[in-house]
Amino acid sequence: MAAKLKTAVLGATGYSGFELTRLLLRHPRVEKPVLLSRSADGKTPANLADIFPALAGNGNGSYPLQLLSWEALKEQGVGLLFLATPHEASRALAPEALNHGLRVIDLSGAWRLQNAENRAVYKFQDEGSAQAVEFMKQAVYGLPELHREKIVSAKIVANPGCYATSVILGLAPLVQSKIIDREKGIISDSKSGVSGAGKEPTAKTHFVSVADNLSAYGVFGHRHLGEMLEQLDLNAGEVTFTPHLLPIPRGILSTIYVHLNREMKASEVEEVFRKFYAGKPWVRVFANPKLPEIQFSVNSNYCDIGFALAKDGRRLIVVSCIDNLVKGAAGQAVQNMNVMYGWGEEEGLN
Amino acid sequence: MAAKLKTAVLGATGYSGFELTRLLLRHPRVEKPVLLSRSADGKTPANLADIFPALAGNGNGSYPLQLLSWEALKEQGVGLLFLATPHEASRALAPEALNHGLRVIDLSGAWRLQNAENRAVYKFQDEGSAQAVEFMKQAVYGLPELHREKIVSAKIVANPGCYATSVILGLAPLVQSKIIDREKGIISDSKSGVSGAGKEPTAKTHFVSVADNLSAYGVFGHRHLGEMLEQLDLNAGEVTFTPHLLPIPRGILSTIYVHLNREMKASEVEEVFRKFYAGKPWVRVFANPKLPEIQFSVNSNYCDIGFALAKDGRRLIVVSCIDNLVKGAAGQAVQNMNVMYGWGEEEGLN
Amino acid sequence: MAAKLKTAVLGATGYSGFELTRLLLRHPRVEKPVLLSRSADGKTPANLADIFPALAGNGNGSYPLQLLSWEALKEQGVGLLFLATPHEASRALAPEALNHGLRVIDLSGAWRLQNAENRAVYKFQDEGSAQAVEFMKQAVYGLPELHREKIVSAKIVANPGCYATSVILGLAPLVQSKIIDREKGIISDSKSGVSGAGKEPTAKTHFVSVADNLSAYGVFGHRHLGEMLEQLDLNAGEVTFTPHLLPIPRGILSTIYVHLNREMKASEVEEVFRKFYAGKPWVRVFANPKLPEIQFSVNSNYCDIGFALAKDGRRLIVVSCIDNLVKGAAGQAVQNMNVMYGWGEEEGLN
Amino acid sequence: MAAKLKTAVLGATGYSGFELTRLLLRHPRVEKPVLLSRSADGKTPANLADIFPALAGNGNGSYPLQLLSWEALKEQGVGLLFLATPHEASRALAPEALNHGLRVIDLSGAWRLQNAENRAVYKFQDEGSAQAVEFMKQAVYGLPELHREKIVSAKIVANPGCYATSVILGLAPLVQSKIIDREKGIISDSKSGVSGAGKEPTAKTHFVSVADNLSAYGVFGHRHLGEMLEQLDLNAGEVTFTPHLLPIPRGILSTIYVHLNREMKASEVEEVFRKFYAGKPWVRVFANPKLPEIQFSVNSNYCDIGFALAKDGRRLIVVSCIDNLVKGAAGQAVQNMNVMYGWGEEEGLN
Repeated sequence: MAAKLKTAVLGATGYSGFELTRLLLRHPRVEKPVLLSRSADGKTPANLADIFPALAGNGNGSYPLQLLSWEALKEQGVGLLFLATPHEASRALAPEALNHGLRVIDLSGAWRLQNAENRAVYKFQDEGSAQAVEFMKQAVYGLPELHREKIVSAKIVANPGCYATSVILGLAPLVQSKIIDREKGIISDSKSGVSGAGKEPTAKTHFVSVADNLSAYGVFGHRHLGEMLEQLDLNAGEVTFTPHLLPIPRGILSTIYVHLNREMKASEVEEVFRKFYAGKPWVRVFANPKLPEIQFSVNSNYCDIGFALAKDGRRLIVVSCIDNLVKGAAGQAVQNMNVMYGWGEEEGLN
Repeated sequence: MAAKLKTAVLGATGYSGFELTRLLLRHPRVEKPVLLSRSADGKTPANLADIFPALAGNGNGSYPLQLLSWEALKEQGVGLLFLATPHEASRALAPEALNHGLRVIDLSGAWRLQNAENRAVYKFQDEGSAQAVEFMKQAVYGLPELHREKIVSAKIVANPGCYATSVILGLAPLVQSKIIDREKGIISDSKSGVSGAGKEPTAKTHFVSVADNLSAYGVFGHRHLGEMLEQLDLNAGEVTFTPHLLPIPRGILSTIYVHLNREMKASEVEEVFRKFYAGKPWVRVFANPKLPEIQFSVNSNYCDIGFALAKDGRRLIVVSCIDNLVKGAAGQAVQNMNVMYGWGEEEGLN
Repeated sequence: MAAKLKTAVLGATGYSGFELTRLLLRHPRVEKPVLLSRSADGKTPANLADIFPALAGNGNGSYPLQLLSWEALKEQGVGLLFLATPHEASRALAPEALNHGLRVIDLSGAWRLQNAENRAVYKFQDEGSAQAVEFMKQAVYGLPELHREKIVSAKIVANPGCYATSVILGLAPLVQSKIIDREKGIISDSKSGVSGAGKEPTAKTHFVSVADNLSAYGVFGHRHLGEMLEQLDLNAGEVTFTPHLLPIPRGILSTIYVHLNREMKASEVEEVFRKFYAGKPWVRVFANPKLPEIQFSVNSNYCDIGFALAKDGRRLIVVSCIDNLVKGAAGQAVQNMNVMYGWGEEEGLN
Repeated sequence: MAAKLKTAVLGATGYSGFELTRLLLRHPRVEKPVLLSRSADGKTPANLADIFPALAGNGNGSYPLQLLSWEALKEQGVGLLFLATPHEASRALAPEALNHGLRVIDLSGAWRLQNAENRAVYKFQDEGSAQAVEFMKQAVYGLPELHREKIVSAKIVANPGCYATSVILGLAPLVQSKIIDREKGIISDSKSGVSGAGKEPTAKTHFVSVADNLSAYGVFGHRHLGEMLEQLDLNAGEVTFTPHLLPIPRGILSTIYVHLNREMKASEVEEVFRKFYAGKPWVRVFANPKLPEIQFSVNSNYCDIGFALAKDGRRLIVVSCIDNLVKGAAGQAVQNMNVMYGWGEEEGLN
């Protein structure tokens, strides 16, 4: 067997970074990842198991965090760097990493959007700089079901947003087969567990605010909308996306509403999905009329897709479920790594 | 002060019936309600506090259930009967009650739908019988915000469905002011707590099935759709309604999507809602851009309504929240009683 | 009817203070309370309904917060001040309030403990000062089931801790009737909902940390232990108290373990509880072998008590439940007010 | 590599049986298990993925259930049968299986108790029959941390109860090192997620009954108490065990109270635990004063143990956490299989 790949993770103390670390620890093709912290702020503990006791084994609970140093990474032979960092940090770090000969999978929103208008919501400080323009061109949107070929040779993979993953995978077969009546608008009513809001304690993530509750937020202004528009090649006015905060730790369910431009049978619609996802191991198409639920895909890398068609054969509802931390973040990052290194797309993810 | 009204509740052992009983117990205009059971099945306990210990006071926990008898109700001077029974039972009992001189508020789906086509989903055994036709004509849909005048003198009030209440109240001002582009379709993506599914233990209501989960159900086929169509005077193909089961005990949030038929400002839309609900104490219109959340209206009789308007001034999202057991059932029943007897609409509900 | 009492609440933006405000708003004997804030920090909104939209009525959502000023309170005719403030703030403010002729009910731990050793855990900055010593003497522990007489004339009432309330009420009848074998130790294994940890967002109160979890904390060192020892007249080594954080918003269940010093029958034990709580409206003694659950007392001012006795007639388990924000805080404060002003203990709490 | 073991699972449609199936599917030493059903009742579906869609893969979701037939099992070369059946069924089936040359791991309570008095709570219909007596003698209690040697050669392994596992592992080091003052009694206050109550929908497991609640049950009468007494060699009056139902899907936390018979230091107590569990991979001893929480061990086979010692050096609190479906059922069954077949105890469980 070939030598194992050496990887590093920056941001393992967050939810996505930790999930990623857990996946890498049991991946047969990679060594135990190097865990990086950005600053010796005295707050970051020396050992990841101090934050996540679930990680500790009996007697081998050693997950030291080391300060980021390009020299050290080189010496350690690291070839792939995962950035599970805030987007501003990723904007600064990804180019540096590339310049030091590393490949990068970035889990933030820093490199996902090619369209400057869509990017505006992020207010990147380096927007328009020569470096940003150059590296933006190199970035590949890391949704393997759409961009497998480009990911193979990418230096920098922009891992998709969690909501975006669930919506794009639910819509792509329909959009690409041109069966949607775009005039009537496309709506995704999406609901996410709280880990999607990050680990920072806020009034919004306080248990008492979330439990026994449901709320819509970011209506008409969520950052992930741009990804949907670019990846599906749709205009801003054609997609309405409403995220909601669910009282559960993890999982996303998107209920997507479209009108078909001709009367179709459920079997035809199912065929559109089946054809599109044939050979793509991480999407499960449900046999009509069965619909996915959040529980089915939680703790897995699956995107589950089902649908219902009105009797009129025109109004179509697609239900798309993922685990926001797995297929919506860490699992997809591993899937991208698998593609980048020519391994089976399922390796380390079962 | 006038003598208090004597009421009876059949079905107090269910969630809605119990909530209703609690409300009646503290209503200043009614006596302690007579609690009825349909059969001496040996399963129904003799005292409601045995099922709902929350009801028991210190030393006065006496809530006896008595077998339904029209003679006994007459002797006890009962004037108003609440039916919190399955719809088939209500179809049989409401006419009997009227024949015995009682007024009836029925919380089931038995008498809500005037259109036989809409009613078909219920498969009533007496559908088409002379009695059913006659009593159907007398039934008034008990949404006081729409039908106050008719409710005043109604003999039989059909208390609306919980989902229907949230959707109709969110849409009525828009539909009646004719600002919706009906061609593009109206969508309500609704989410409800588990008490809406009733008290019967099933695989669907098992804690492990619901917790950490979200699921859509009854897509394109839910019984409450007919109420929306009739009350809003819309055609079947114009409304898409998708209910979801939330991992919370109570509360409904409906996210409603419409297209306006002309470009409008948020202030104009808000004015449409404010005008419509002026003087209607149980609807709270939120100042744009604030949106209601389920927690705000739980345990109250309020329907909370807020909205967001896209920059294009066309795409409108309405968020409507209620407590499914209060404004969606028992509280609305009390509100209907208040209207029927000429009392203030808020009495006993604060 | 007599003129209504004028009250003020400092700290209505916290969970307990808000619950208290809601209770005062519907209390028949008091006027709409004056809502106070301590500082114009720019963070505290001008209107309480901005933080708690559940409070807002339809068109009458006016709950202005005013800066604390003794002069203004005097002019407004306020006679009773509720402090729902951190304990250090209460240590400073309660004496001031008394000096300005107000009576005070303090919901913090500032004035609960007469024993300096027990008080040490709070590390009060004014510990030992003449003022603190003097006001400490005047403070009455506000558990009406134990200290009704003293509360009637108290100037400063120290509202008990939530855990302490549940444990003391579960144990007092047993301790006072001297049927416990104190040699074998008394254990309270207590579990609380998250609102007991306060509204400040922390890593501990983040939804993802609490949901699907249970954790013990403050083992052998929780501040409420001192209250139990003082009120029950027990020695430090005799009581073991272990709090746990439950994944629910509100409610406490304490499972209390004692050994009896002689073999008893369940009926005898029940009689001990019934005798002790006769005429005390806010404690419900459950008929053996029925046990209370958190749901039964949530949103009420009841303390529910039940028990199980081993076949040996010696090992006794008491289960005591309260809503931590009602009987454990705001409701008990209202109950204390009722006692202080000679009103029925149940007024405004049903 | 040696040929893989062929196993069969009866009861894969329940929570424990399904969890077991998932574990076996990824175990490197066993083939895809044969899934059995007991009767062609028309209710049991033909494919396990129809009940548990999480199981379905993309295109390979084939998990057929076949009717139990000893002949078929023989033909298929099955060597080990897992019984995830109700205890009465296990009483009948385990002897049959042994007679047909199979080894058995039984997850029910059928074969755990050697003491007839303890067994009485189960009211086995075959109690006292020659067959039952004979097979009872052969049964080995499947807690590998205590009975590794006997399990190696056992024909029938009685997989422990979930509560019993958490309590016995928390107490065994203390009891065996004789540092407990047994006179003062041992108490385990245990809390379990709802999956421990089984998949049958009941009033007790209805979401609305469990959510926002906590309740004690089976006080002084739970079936798992007998296991604790036998395994720890304690008398009935020495152990008080109180189970509680937590509003979470899975996980157990036991808070165990003991008195030490001499004053000890925390470091000495920790040493007692560390010594006992040295080389035992599935117990993690937490460094004092850190305590385990349910989240740390959920979805793993770990039993996490931590403790707190009072300043008096006598009162000791042990906190023991497991996932009730893994270390408390299916994971432990796999661990037992690993021991029975001479494989590493951790195989297939990471």
